Amino acid sequence: MKVIADFTIVPVGAGVSLSPYVAACEQILLGAGLKVQLHANGTNLEGDWDAVFAAVKRCHETVHQMGAPRIFTTLKIGTRTDRDQSMEAKIASVENKLEHGSRIEE
Amino acid sequence: MKVIADFTIVPVGAGVSLSPYVAACEQILLGAGLKVQLHANGTNLEGDWDAVFAAVKRCHETVHQMGAPRIFTTLKIGTRTDRDQSMEAKIASVENKLEHGSRIEE
Amino acid sequence: MKVIADFTIVPVGAGVSLSPYVAACEQILLGAGLKVQLHANGTNLEGDWDAVFAAVKRCHETVHQMGAPRIFTTLKIGTRTDRDQSMEAKIASVENKLEHGSRIEE
Amino acid sequence: MKVIADFTIVPVGAGVSLSPYVAACEQILLGAGLKVQLHANGTNLEGDWDAVFAAVKRCHETVHQMGAPRIFTTLKIGTRTDRDQSMEAKIASVENKLEHGSRIEE
Repeated sequence: MKVIADFTIVPVGAGVSLSPYVAACEQILLGAGLKVQLHANGTNLEGDWDAVFAAVKRCHETVHQMGAPRIFTTLKIGTRTDRDQSMEAKIASVENKLEHGSRIEE
Repeated sequence: MKVIADFTIVPVGAGVSLSPYVAACEQILLGAGLKVQLHANGTNLEGDWDAVFAAVKRCHETVHQMGAPRIFTTLKIGTRTDRDQSMEAKIASVENKLEHGSRIEE
Repeated sequence: MKVIADFTIVPVGAGVSLSPYVAACEQILLGAGLKVQLHANGTNLEGDWDAVFAAVKRCHETVHQMGAPRIFTTLKIGTRTDRDQSMEAKIASVENKLEHGSRIEE
Repeated sequence: MKVIADFTIVPVGAGVSLSPYVAACEQILLGAGLKVQLHANGTNLEGDWDAVFAAVKRCHETVHQMGAPRIFTTLKIGTRTDRDQSMEAKIASVENKLEHGSRIEE
């Protein structure tokens, strides 16, 4: 089962700068063979369900090892059986409608 | 690694009533040996990481089998290494501070 | 427009214990005339859109005043136009289906 | 108070294709003077708290007017008082650590 996910990891009790922890996770996610897109509020992932969740677990284990006593993660997970859709196709589907003017009538 | 999670599953393209799908998930979660607390915006779960995520995967598979072509799930996931804490203890920790009056000074 | 929401506030850079901040928010939410249900991973809210979001903003302002330099909040927000539904009715709708046995056929 | 947010709107009971609704929201967000970055699992927003939440409310109103009887929205909201930070700076902060090699020691 393929999944497109959005993953945000927030270490708690580890100071105000979170980027060292997020960078360590990016390396794990990239090394896991997933499609990975860092954005301003998290990281988008595309891959097989088991591969995605194994990588997320490894991020938690690693961020704890780096010294964070507590972690708060948010995941958005999308699966579909009607058709295969990539992350790029999701974005293109919206942008196409913007260009071709599905204007809001008021 | 123990996890306390909040799980909200939203079938898309399956009509406006979601409770049959949520009820099917509850049965899966209860059958998985997790601590399960249904609330107004999702279900709180407490258990081992692998058991929690195996149950969430089984919910996606089942809701697709029930006819939903698309699923949007939100998960909040908490882990901690400083101490063991149950869902009840998390709530009690907040309620205790309310009763003993950590008033907001303004 | 009525909203049923799930609100989780996570102060960052303010130590590992979050309950004093959450308790301060509970007092704000209760004082705002909203229906408030604390649970293990957040707080469920029911009320008018503007009242809910004014209270959430006040929580951010207060938690910063209490000393948290950074806040990460997660909100789940539900609105519907087909019918009026309370938080209690959402839970009852699922529990009713569990009792009457919408068994998963496999 | 400035906010950096991630906004995902999921119309329920309105069929399996969500892009027309998301495109309508993008037009609202762009028209509201916010910094807007569409990604594969939502839209990142940067702006004043009140402007961001007024636009989110207008999205709910519009998607209901377009025919969706029910909406499920997820928001991640970040505020900070220690320093001003843009969405681009958040991403650069992580990417800089990747390039300069904060390797995970195991």
